This record gives sequence, structure tokens and C-alpha cells, in this order.
Amino acid sequence: MRIAIDMDEVLADPIHKFIQLYNRDYQIPLDLAIKPGTEIFQNLPQEINQKWFEYINEKGFFRDLPVIDGAVEAVQRLQEKYDVYIVSAAMEFRNSLEDKLDWLAEHFPFISWKHIIFCGEKIVNVDIMIDDRIKNFAGFNGRPLLFTSPHNLLITEYERVDKWQQVLDKLI
Amino acid sequence: MRIAIDMDEVLADPIHKFIQLYNRDYQIPLDLAIKPGTEIFQNLPQEINQKWFEYINEKGFFRDLPVIDGAVEAVQRLQEKYDVYIVSAAMEFRNSLEDKLDWLAEHFPFISWKHIIFCGEKIVNVDIMIDDRIKNFAGFNGRPLLFTSPHNLLITEYERVDKWQQVLDKLI
Repeated sequence: MRIAIDMDEVLADPIHKFIQLYNRDYQIPLDLAIKPGTEIFQNLPQEINQKWFEYINEKGFFRDLPVIDGAVEAVQRLQEKYDVYIVSAAMEFRNSLEDKLDWLAEHFPFISWKHIIFCGEKIVNVDIMIDDRIKNFAGFNGRPLLFTSPHNLLITEYERVDKWQQVLDKLI
Repeated sequence: MRIAIDMDEVLADPIHKFIQLYNRDYQIPLDLAIKPGTEIFQNLPQEINQKWFEYINEKGFFRDLPVIDGAVEAVQRLQEKYDVYIVSAAMEFRNSLEDKLDWLAEHFPFISWKHIIFCGEKIVNVDIMIDDRIKNFAGFNGRPLLFTSPHNLLITEYERVDKWQQVLDKLI
């Protein structure tokens, strides 16, 4: 059985870094509250809310993201039972490709390059998909697990996991 | 219907560039004959035959490869009838990622980032796969088309295409 695991907001935490950069540039408070069901930029003053696009396209943005709690241990555990693939829609951001690969090599060195996929549409042939974006479940015939993130909190039609321990409880 | 199209030796010609680099560094003749069923490095003096690995890992190697004859027009034609995805096992070569994306943007600007996949194992959910490496057909349940390259000339168990015009003759 194969599992596809997303990167941003599932293994890596870009939101934390966005807020740090907004704090540096515009003194946006580090404890910025993100309204459930909204994207981070929708919680910011309108005149700067497209800045995230600039941040995300900078070289280095994805290189030093914090690892989501429990992700490393959980992926290791899943690897004992499943064929684990990391599948990231990285292709939209040219400058993220090397950073994401280097980040994986640092934090998930036990994932072979053979099991890493950078794509646009996630047309992967897997049995389980763990992702925070439901657009990636479109046309997917396996078991989708929606990994909780502020932007998807109002979505009710998918099986949800809030934490990596919950993923293990369901799959191991 | 979806088609996955490989890059190296299908859309882009790395062999031509390998020979140019060997010529520059070791005066290997530019008309080097590659014995059917062998890899390029097997046709070179033993003391330099691992050099290709060094070349392929250099930044820039994949950026200026020649386009295989007829590829641009054929992919455009296929796009009118199919969902075309470019699927390259680029993940083995970190330094190839940006070069390959930039190369596609230059020569195939009509391919959206949503339809580009850089991976290791090609576990893509497509109906037709055009590739020069039969290892990428392992576990594939669709229609594989083996694109002719010197290294695969002795393989007989797959439907073969020698040129892009043959692909169009079969698929359009």
C-alpha cells in the first residue's frame, strides 16, 4: 500500500515563517490569529496581503521551515508498513525546488529520492493521501486524510486528522 | 485520456551534450558510435567512463540540451487531444531541477506547471506513457510506448516509437 504525504502545512510549517516575515517587515504581531476557513493573507491589512506571494518566491523561503510536530517519527513509523511517497505541488514555485529537496534531506534523510515527487496536479497512483488542500483530492479514488490547517477548518466532507499521532492511530 | 511524456532522450537530447563534453575534455570523437543496447559510458575508455556522472550533476547540464526532432510540434498536437504531462525522473539530480523547469519554459511554454512532474519512481495515474527506460513501465497498467534510444535497441517486448512522427501516427 502506498501513501502520498504532502509537505507544506503537513510536514513543514510555512505559516510560522510567513508571520515572522510580516513581523519583520510590517510589525504584524507574532501571535496573529488566523480566522478558521481563511488563508493567512486574508487576515492581514489589504495593502500588504499579497506580500506572501513575494516571500514564497524568494530563494530560501522553504529551506528552514520548522518541522510539524511529530512528523519525523510518524513518517518513520509509516515507512515500516507502507510505501511512503512525499508529494508536493512545488512546481508552481521554481525557487522552492532545491530548498524543498535539501529540507527533506536534512529532516527526512530516510526518504529516498525515488519516493519524492514535485508536481502540479497530484495525479499519483497511491492508496492513501495525506494533504491539507482538498483540491489535491479531486479525482483521487483512494482514502484521503485531510490534515488540519486553519484554512480547511470549515470543511466537513473528508476524514480529518489534526495531528500526526492521529494519523498513526488510524493507519498503524 | 492522460499521456505522461519523459524528458531525457524523448524531448531533450543529453547524449549529444555528453559527447561534446567528452570531446572537450578527452578528445573523444564527436561521431562516437554507441553500440546498440549499451549506455554511452560503456562505449568510452574505462578510466573516464564514470565522468558522465560528474557532467550530469553539474549546474547547467540540462539547461541547454537540444530538443529532439519534432518534439515541440508533436506535443502541441497531442495537447489538442490528450491531457499531456511531462514526467521526468529528475529527483536523482538535485542540480537538474531548475534547469529542467527553465528548459521546459523555454521550449514548451504551452505546458502549464500543473502538468509538470519531477519524481523518482513514476507512479503516475496516466493512460499512455512515452519513455525510453523500461524500468519506468514497471507496474504501469496503461499503454507504454518505448521511445527509441541506443541503450534500448535490443528490447523487443514493448510497442516502440522511433520518432515523434510515429507517435502522432499512432495516437492522433
